[in-house]
Amino acid sequence: MFTSSNNSKELFLGIDGGGSKCKAIIMNENNEILGSGLSGPGNPLHGFEQATNSITESAKLALKDAGLDVGLNGIKLNELNAGVGLAGVNLPVLFKQMQAWQHPFKQMFLAHDLLVACLGAHHSYNGAVIISGTGSCGFSCIDEQEFMVGGHGFPQGDKGSGAWFGLQATKQVLLSLDGIVQPSLMNDILLKKLGCIDATAIVEKIVDKKATFYAQLANLVFDAAELGDKVALGIVEEGAEYINSIARILLTKKPARISMLGGLTPRLKPRIDEALQAQLSEPLSAAEVGSVLFARQELAKQQQSKVHEQLSH
Amino acid sequence: MFTSSNNSKELFLGIDGGGSKCKAIIMNENNEILGSGLSGPGNPLHGFEQATNSITESAKLALKDAGLDVGLNGIKLNELNAGVGLAGVNLPVLFKQMQAWQHPFKQMFLAHDLLVACLGAHHSYNGAVIISGTGSCGFSCIDEQEFMVGGHGFPQGDKGSGAWFGLQATKQVLLSLDGIVQPSLMNDILLKKLGCIDATAIVEKIVDKKATFYAQLANLVFDAAELGDKVALGIVEEGAEYINSIARILLTKKPARISMLGGLTPRLKPRIDEALQAQLSEPLSAAEVGSVLFARQELAKQQQSKVHEQLSH
Repeated sequence: MFTSSNNSKELFLGIDGGGSKCKAIIMNENNEILGSGLSGPGNPLHGFEQATNSITESAKLALKDAGLDVGLNGIKLNELNAGVGLAGVNLPVLFKQMQAWQHPFKQMFLAHDLLVACLGAHHSYNGAVIISGTGSCGFSCIDEQEFMVGGHGFPQGDKGSGAWFGLQATKQVLLSLDGIVQPSLMNDILLKKLGCIDATAIVEKIVDKKATFYAQLANLVFDAAELGDKVALGIVEEGAEYINSIARILLTKKPARISMLGGLTPRLKPRIDEALQAQLSEPLSAAEVGSVLFARQELAKQQQSKVHEQLSH
Repeated sequence: MFTSSNNSKELFLGIDGGGSKCKAIIMNENNEILGSGLSGPGNPLHGFEQATNSITESAKLALKDAGLDVGLNGIKLNELNAGVGLAGVNLPVLFKQMQAWQHPFKQMFLAHDLLVACLGAHHSYNGAVIISGTGSCGFSCIDEQEFMVGGHGFPQGDKGSGAWFGLQATKQVLLSLDGIVQPSLMNDILLKKLGCIDATAIVEKIVDKKATFYAQLANLVFDAAELGDKVALGIVEEGAEYINSIARILLTKKPARISMLGGLTPRLKPRIDEALQAQLSEPLSAAEVGSVLFARQELAKQQQSKVHEQLSH
């Protein structure tokens, strides 16, 4: 699907903008990666200015990394066809806001982060992904029919995500420091990790903290579970069971392939149902490659409809 | 304890500053309430400027309500002995910040909200309170020995609070809209309450919302439980069981009286263990009265130590 040379003279920018960072790559017409860039948060959910600045900055860094920005004939942003995949734009209000952006590119094709992650993982519009990083969710795209499950944000959704694991650990440790539940191995590990000596110090440290903060605490739950801590194991099992549910719902859609993505995958994948594990395929590429594939597809559609228009006149 | 006339020529201001509002009263030397005032958030946790503005504003309103601010001899803020009880100042960093405030009063005696709530409820330094409003916690003060349990803030602590109930309901409804758990009566009630038709609309509505938002959803959990909804009943029982734990921990301190306070009390009290319910006493006064009692006590101590100093010279 993506090997046609419709866009043979074009350079592509692929963006994967999430809650903590924004990744950019430059790809040529042969789907070769020429350079990459990394900047701050690219999720418009927590600020339009910051998201658009991060996108532009990461794009410039990728051009520089590719050595394409130098000299009189240096490539400018307005020569790039940009595929921009962003967390948050599954919300219509944010999609509209980003779509209205006076972007610096030749063209911008906007998609949500799940679609580009799925395209990147499968190089095809028939696949599904289970994501557990800072957040969590399930997504499938089959014959361009998109389906999403979970992923409602932190703390109200995103069960089985890094932020969820970190928050569960924090709650449990606070309850045990109050004497309401038995202390567990997580107590010492969490207190040490946060550099705190008691509940008051923990609370001072975590006041108003966001999902990204809690996600940094996720690994300690798995560490404690591996050391035999039953409370931690209970949290791991509850999170894994939620991921099982997501996987089962996605499999009812009969995707050609299904992959597990996100920073927590190495810890979480061995914990999910073995029959489900057996059905998982390794992702082929990262989400920012999916963004380029999306842009190429959209550009090809544009060209087809132009041809169609010319023929009908 | 509070009937002595040590401070017989004084007027007192009592402040109860919480996360959503700040209450003020003016009391005379006979502990009679002369006027009251209400303003915005008084909790320095979410902003020093806002908290100090709210305190000053509510104090002015209380003076006005008492009819004391008029004429040439109108009472000014700098003639008031202020007892200021604030949520958040149990954290040392916030206590220091508020203590350093260049306040407009004659004197300011700063205490955390739990101490003044407890003093207000019992008119004595021997008592305990279980609070469930927007947040939750337990507190006792016996022979000036303070003890606190729970109350670690939202979403990491404050189990059994309004915010906790609201968040549990939201989580459950989102899971059921995804088909991961069975829908319950709470679905229709929550969707109607938020004016939403689906999960996406809910998420748009609740992005970045704080505890006070979720606390507004607490009653619907109790409503659904009363209509026989088992999921809602499970949440109510889990919350009530946590409150039972708090009560049992407080009772080990053997307080002279124990009361349940906060906006969720009418819904939650009938749900806790009956043996515990039987031990609860009705609170005598509100927290802002407790703030005045605190100020009088501190002022009396000051005067005693002055007398002591004079005698020893």
